[in-house]
Amino acid sequence: MDKEISQAVIRRMPRYYRYLGDLIDKGVERISSYDLSVMMHVTASQIRQDLNNFGGFGQQGYGYNVKYLYEEIGKILGLNIVHNIIIIGAGNVGQAIANYVNFERVGFNIIALFDVNPDLIGKSIRGIEIHDYNELEEFVKNNKVDIAALTLPKNAAVESSSKLIELGVKAFWNFANVDIENEDNSLIVENVHLSESLMRLSYNIIRQDKA
Amino acid sequence: MDKEISQAVIRRMPRYYRYLGDLIDKGVERISSYDLSVMMHVTASQIRQDLNNFGGFGQQGYGYNVKYLYEEIGKILGLNIVHNIIIIGAGNVGQAIANYVNFERVGFNIIALFDVNPDLIGKSIRGIEIHDYNELEEFVKNNKVDIAALTLPKNAAVESSSKLIELGVKAFWNFANVDIENEDNSLIVENVHLSESLMRLSYNIIRQDKA
Repeated sequence: MDKEISQAVIRRMPRYYRYLGDLIDKGVERISSYDLSVMMHVTASQIRQDLNNFGGFGQQGYGYNVKYLYEEIGKILGLNIVHNIIIIGAGNVGQAIANYVNFERVGFNIIALFDVNPDLIGKSIRGIEIHDYNELEEFVKNNKVDIAALTLPKNAAVESSSKLIELGVKAFWNFANVDIENEDNSLIVENVHLSESLMRLSYNIIRQDKA
Repeated sequence: MDKEISQAVIRRMPRYYRYLGDLIDKGVERISSYDLSVMMHVTASQIRQDLNNFGGFGQQGYGYNVKYLYEEIGKILGLNIVHNIIIIGAGNVGQAIANYVNFERVGFNIIALFDVNPDLIGKSIRGIEIHDYNELEEFVKNNKVDIAALTLPKNAAVESSSKLIELGVKAFWNFANVDIENEDNSLIVENVHLSESLMRLSYNIIRQDKA
């Protein structure tokens, strides 16, 4: 698994994982690339190609073992490893994420929230404490922090990401309406830009109305 | 503007819009494609190519008028038109979205939330009422609904999207962990799959650790 897998393939893997999980829930043990392709609205050849990047998993004429493939994709995605997340900004979005139990099932463990608001500091979301933002440095030094979720206004997000980078945090789940500077590609950043997603929706609505 | 613009270009337009907005906030009136490219970490030729899709806007050796370009991209994205949004599912994510005032500034108007939970029905988020899910049909018939945000568990999301499609809703902002069936491409769907975004983060963390 030393060769470079394209980010396009990586973007598709979680979707395979989701469909295979649904099949397990339905009691399906085996599926052909054709049946999977119909379900997922992609071509069977795309599925075979994507999975071949990781060594195949299928047997000609026999299909995929659903549970095995699900577990292998889980390992490829690193879901068998626990990732500790801290959330910077305990506002609406930060709290919504902290409330999301499904993340834990796939190995993402939210260990703390941070905020500057005295009304929030000391409170808990599902038992996860909201800390004073001033304690961030000490916390990161004393705990294993794998991912920082940035759910705060853009100027504050830039400032706190700089601080976190200094403290050695390398992976960011960025909900702030700003780009995290990553010129030398030393960071791993996943952006969730909600406004931009809405704007694409808007563009496509207008385009359809004109068509 | 009749020719088909690729979705890759469309995906980049909101980011231009964001950078231009930041420049306006900083009082910058004019910018060259080169300076913009340095700021955005893309090539100047990409910027020129992208904007040429919509007719250019720049003058050789003179740069772009920031405010004009910002407004034109806003029009291209349809942000000068008001889009009414209803939110199906008034849980944590639904409430977080309803609380987000920035969407209104770019023309997205959240007009109602819906839920089945009696503890939530009748309450309001920033003055936006949480309605009984049973009133959905009547509401959609009596109001202009442009976009439905789906912030509910996957089975419920599939059911309510079918209902909304029947009622004539064509655009979905989908936060549920499921795909909205759109075989004939008659719908406009923007997915925000938070778990999948976290999984890509996880994959890239492992890959970097191995490198």
